Amino acid sequence: MVAKMNPDLKKERENASFDPEKITNFLYGGQESVKRKRELESLALNDPDYQHEDLNFMSREQQYETQLKKGILMVTKMKELKITSAQDQLFYTSAVLVSDVHPMSVHTRMFLPTLYGQATEQQKDKWLKLAENYTIIGTYAQTEIGHGTFVRGLETTATYDPKTQEFILNTPTLSASKWWPGGMGKTSNYVVLMAQLYIYGKSYGIHPFMLQIRSLEDHKPLPGVTVGDIGPKFGYDVMDNGFLSLNNVRIPRENMLMKYSRVEPDGTYVRPPSTKLAYGTMVQVRAGIVMFSGMNLAKAVTIATRYSCVRRQSEMKPGHPEPQVLDYVTQQYKLFPYLAAAYAFWLTGQTMMSVYTTSSSQISKGDISVLPELHALSAGLKALSSSMANVGMEECRLACGGHGYSHASGLPRLYTNATPASTAEGEHVVLMLQTARYLMKSYNQSLQGEKLAGSVAYLSGVQLVPAAGRTRNMLDLGALCDAFRHRAARIVGEAAAQLRSEMQGGKDQADAWNASSVDLTKAAMAHSQYFVVKTFAERLTDSRLDSSISAVLTRLCQLHALHGLVTNSGDFLEDGYLTGSDIRQARRHINALMAKLRPDAVALVDAFDFPDGILNSILGRYDGNVYQHLLEWAKASPLNKTDVHQSYHKYLKPFLEANRAKL
Amino acid sequence: MVAKMNPDLKKERENASFDPEKITNFLYGGQESVKRKRELESLALNDPDYQHEDLNFMSREQQYETQLKKGILMVTKMKELKITSAQDQLFYTSAVLVSDVHPMSVHTRMFLPTLYGQATEQQKDKWLKLAENYTIIGTYAQTEIGHGTFVRGLETTATYDPKTQEFILNTPTLSASKWWPGGMGKTSNYVVLMAQLYIYGKSYGIHPFMLQIRSLEDHKPLPGVTVGDIGPKFGYDVMDNGFLSLNNVRIPRENMLMKYSRVEPDGTYVRPPSTKLAYGTMVQVRAGIVMFSGMNLAKAVTIATRYSCVRRQSEMKPGHPEPQVLDYVTQQYKLFPYLAAAYAFWLTGQTMMSVYTTSSSQISKGDISVLPELHALSAGLKALSSSMANVGMEECRLACGGHGYSHASGLPRLYTNATPASTAEGEHVVLMLQTARYLMKSYNQSLQGEKLAGSVAYLSGVQLVPAAGRTRNMLDLGALCDAFRHRAARIVGEAAAQLRSEMQGGKDQADAWNASSVDLTKAAMAHSQYFVVKTFAERLTDSRLDSSISAVLTRLCQLHALHGLVTNSGDFLEDGYLTGSDIRQARRHINALMAKLRPDAVALVDAFDFPDGILNSILGRYDGNVYQHLLEWAKASPLNKTDVHQSYHKYLKPFLEANRAKL
Repeated sequence: MVAKMNPDLKKERENASFDPEKITNFLYGGQESVKRKRELESLALNDPDYQHEDLNFMSREQQYETQLKKGILMVTKMKELKITSAQDQLFYTSAVLVSDVHPMSVHTRMFLPTLYGQATEQQKDKWLKLAENYTIIGTYAQTEIGHGTFVRGLETTATYDPKTQEFILNTPTLSASKWWPGGMGKTSNYVVLMAQLYIYGKSYGIHPFMLQIRSLEDHKPLPGVTVGDIGPKFGYDVMDNGFLSLNNVRIPRENMLMKYSRVEPDGTYVRPPSTKLAYGTMVQVRAGIVMFSGMNLAKAVTIATRYSCVRRQSEMKPGHPEPQVLDYVTQQYKLFPYLAAAYAFWLTGQTMMSVYTTSSSQISKGDISVLPELHALSAGLKALSSSMANVGMEECRLACGGHGYSHASGLPRLYTNATPASTAEGEHVVLMLQTARYLMKSYNQSLQGEKLAGSVAYLSGVQLVPAAGRTRNMLDLGALCDAFRHRAARIVGEAAAQLRSEMQGGKDQADAWNASSVDLTKAAMAHSQYFVVKTFAERLTDSRLDSSISAVLTRLCQLHALHGLVTNSGDFLEDGYLTGSDIRQARRHINALMAKLRPDAVALVDAFDFPDGILNSILGRYDGNVYQHLLEWAKASPLNKTDVHQSYHKYLKPFLEANRAKL
Repeated sequence: MVAKMNPDLKKERENASFDPEKITNFLYGGQESVKRKRELESLALNDPDYQHEDLNFMSREQQYETQLKKGILMVTKMKELKITSAQDQLFYTSAVLVSDVHPMSVHTRMFLPTLYGQATEQQKDKWLKLAENYTIIGTYAQTEIGHGTFVRGLETTATYDPKTQEFILNTPTLSASKWWPGGMGKTSNYVVLMAQLYIYGKSYGIHPFMLQIRSLEDHKPLPGVTVGDIGPKFGYDVMDNGFLSLNNVRIPRENMLMKYSRVEPDGTYVRPPSTKLAYGTMVQVRAGIVMFSGMNLAKAVTIATRYSCVRRQSEMKPGHPEPQVLDYVTQQYKLFPYLAAAYAFWLTGQTMMSVYTTSSSQISKGDISVLPELHALSAGLKALSSSMANVGMEECRLACGGHGYSHASGLPRLYTNATPASTAEGEHVVLMLQTARYLMKSYNQSLQGEKLAGSVAYLSGVQLVPAAGRTRNMLDLGALCDAFRHRAARIVGEAAAQLRSEMQGGKDQADAWNASSVDLTKAAMAHSQYFVVKTFAERLTDSRLDSSISAVLTRLCQLHALHGLVTNSGDFLEDGYLTGSDIRQARRHINALMAKLRPDAVALVDAFDFPDGILNSILGRYDGNVYQHLLEWAKASPLNKTDVHQSYHKYLKPFLEANRAKL
């Protein structure tokens, strides 16, 4: 029997002002792409070979084993089914893994790409086939227990021995232990090891080396190798992130990945043509995180929005039935700004990715002039989107009240697996300061009369002193973009002024930078927010959008901008660019927009098109049958295997009996 | 051998401007109290009978069993050791349980207090001794799967049958299943059941009933009782939160707790003298959460601050050694505002608790006039402090970079166990709106010329139109309190105006309230923040404070106020009360205060006096020997029991061999 849809959700869907399918097509790049996505998802979700066990009911060891087994099956099936494009693999694996990873994920995501990118042709001949066919399983070993973001500080050494033409690998100190690489703890038998290269006592900086760490016969660590799991974490339970220390491990000279730098047999070091080429991949990864942040936020908002329509609570009017929670304006104010932000980052992530694609063809032709712009933009957007997703996912969980706290909601696991995005691949503040460095450089160039291009072009044109007494329509996307642009330009200008003044006050550049860094971070944030607002607005000028969806998306874009404006209202008021009455107008518009978005909320989250199997949330079920499934899920909890738990006989019974005897 | 202290932490401690012991005495109410605290903690932490196993390495079932065993031992020992006062029990149990709970915690925290508060003398004679001596173990069953904050909406029924003089208990619908009570899943054999009372078909609202749910012989659920664990959650792994449904379960009339309301044998219902008396306990619980939020934030800040002095990262100046992370101004800006907030809530929690104590003696004399004020104040402060602690604990985790994500940091478990505080005992927005309701009532009274007292007295006196052109010293605590007062009064006034205008526009009261609720929440927030700033400043006028600690605490108070001011700068700028130049001055002061606080940071967290055994964090260790202990901890991870995990033989080996064969 097919379960009936919850009547409240049914009504929501009937009353929407547009067909969500149209937005789905817009979000995924067209009807064909959506069709393919659904085929692959259904292939993964309906394949009886996958058991889709609930990881929440397992110990960490069981989770590791379960997902290793699933990962192996998945890799085998993808080959059989010829699922080869990156896009197709993403759709298929997200569904198979129920939005999680598996212990060999880093093999695909980093080990293989590093071989493609850093190995010579000869090296590729030797290793690629082995790796592509999983006869070796690798990971990428960069971070150390004492070293993260600052790659130059890594301590692991690779000392060249010209006599034997080998590198001798060592972990010279406790803080040099490799730490974090996914899949290294128990699974991988190979790593790409990032280490300080020494030749004849001289240091040449960080280089990549192919290193076998476990026997291909019995999987035991090789001599000189100490390796293991780093222990349980907030999330990523299924992943055996590992530690590794090396004691005089020798590898042949040919194991250094030499596409760029080389060490000749006699120990001669040959420099790479450019040190900036590695940037390209990093930009791609960061652009991916913008998209990924938008999607994770979209998942959380989907769960919370559907549940808020099913959940009825309190009494708005005496004697009336309990209203749907989403009818409370405060609940709308919790969720709708994140609904808008999810759309904003989803679309900005796509734009960022296509900027990357265009630029990388230039880069591959040797033109690296676009790199600083690309790098600064992707760093700021990665930091902004991942931190906003972090906060937003937790707000969505809290907006589900008590049930959000249960693993049945899907929200805790979504959060704990997604939150590393704001630390990994460049920590939030570190990245914001990299963007700020580019902004300062660009701003100073503009002061010297240079014309700026790209994302910072506006820094040369903007009037920093606001025109007083203007009347603004705070709903107008042009006016909103202007306001965000003005704010960014002003804050960039003030950060530059502060930096100058710290240096004039006698600080050297490093100290002045540090002393100004809170304001510099703020400048990078304002710049990134402006880019997102502008990109969101620009994407809505797409002529393929029909009027029904362009109307509702425009409301979301207005809400996104207005909410950013009122939550940072001081930034717009500080120099008088906006007035108190503008801000009050903005708040009234937000209320009005929320009221207009309310009937479309469910359709707007349906449009993200996450099947239940991927969302993995009882609160967010498409059919809205929440309570019945909560109860069924609870009954399957391991503690409920028996009516009376074994601990009763071991501990509770003797305790109760002893107490009774004493009375 | 005693491990040496990390040299960086040693230096920090040597360079502090004050003796942390003095602040510890201030925070815990004197030297004697600190001495007693340490005795109890050391009793708990050094007792070899407790094994203090690492729960992070266990499955949820193992965690439940381990903590049940520990809880039983603890209850027995507390009796032997005659640890009886609430304060002493808190110190002892926090240490035994390593900041966690045990499956019988709700027995002590809610079941017993409910019996004390709601049972008649006769009922106390019957049950109290049994409960106090743990021959019965109880919990408090209020929330249902479909009903949380709105108590009147509960559906469980207790129908009086005058023929047999019994109540018939039922769970009439799916959404009426009891859901969440701690310890109900597997442990308790009794509950206080909150149910809708029906007599002769008429409803009399929610009342408490004593109900046995499991056999005292074999612990099996009694006939008509379906009970079990609700499954894994974000945190509270050790707790068997439960579900319960009842099918025609009969209990004697005497099982209704009848201190206030009564049902006579013939079915006559006797009303309670006042329905507001139950408020008192709620206020106490909420005041406790303010304190608890301050303490949890203090723990997180302690971990992150110590670690930020041990961790060295990046290169501030070319060729120089890697600086301590806390020397980055951005890192100070992440942590110091939360350090200040931890102090703010710790002190405000104490003040709130003493206001409660004073008021409750009035209440016990029958004067319930103080209740609305007490209720509104505690609601707003609970909501503010728990949400700020929520955000702050996560910021502290993120400030620890990658290692913050490991359970070794202690931060994930701290967060997941503390975050329910912002949902339980009244959801954030619901509570803020309760405070807002009192603010609106008070404000309207003041408009009608009534003089207001207590926390809202300022609403009648404040000039809403700011005096223009004033020069302010933004470091002056008086000026800062004035600014927060003005902001609160203005926002309260505007929310009231909006509410009026919505009603004048034709909305009924409920709709107008809902339409204004975002602004009403904002008003309650501004009111609560003002109270915290003012309370923090007032506590510093304590004449027992010596000058060295009063200087550093004043800096914290200034930072707390200034940070609140710049992060909400729009609120102060909107009506021109502050100017852009005031805000810029505030930002400069924040930078200067952080530089002054930097050398005292470690001493300020040491002053919280959390022993390592309670902090339970490798990153936050007092001796700072982080990396060595991270490695040791990791080696104890269950996945490292064998070099080669069993999953290799089961899954990985066949996979690798098959792939090799195919090549």
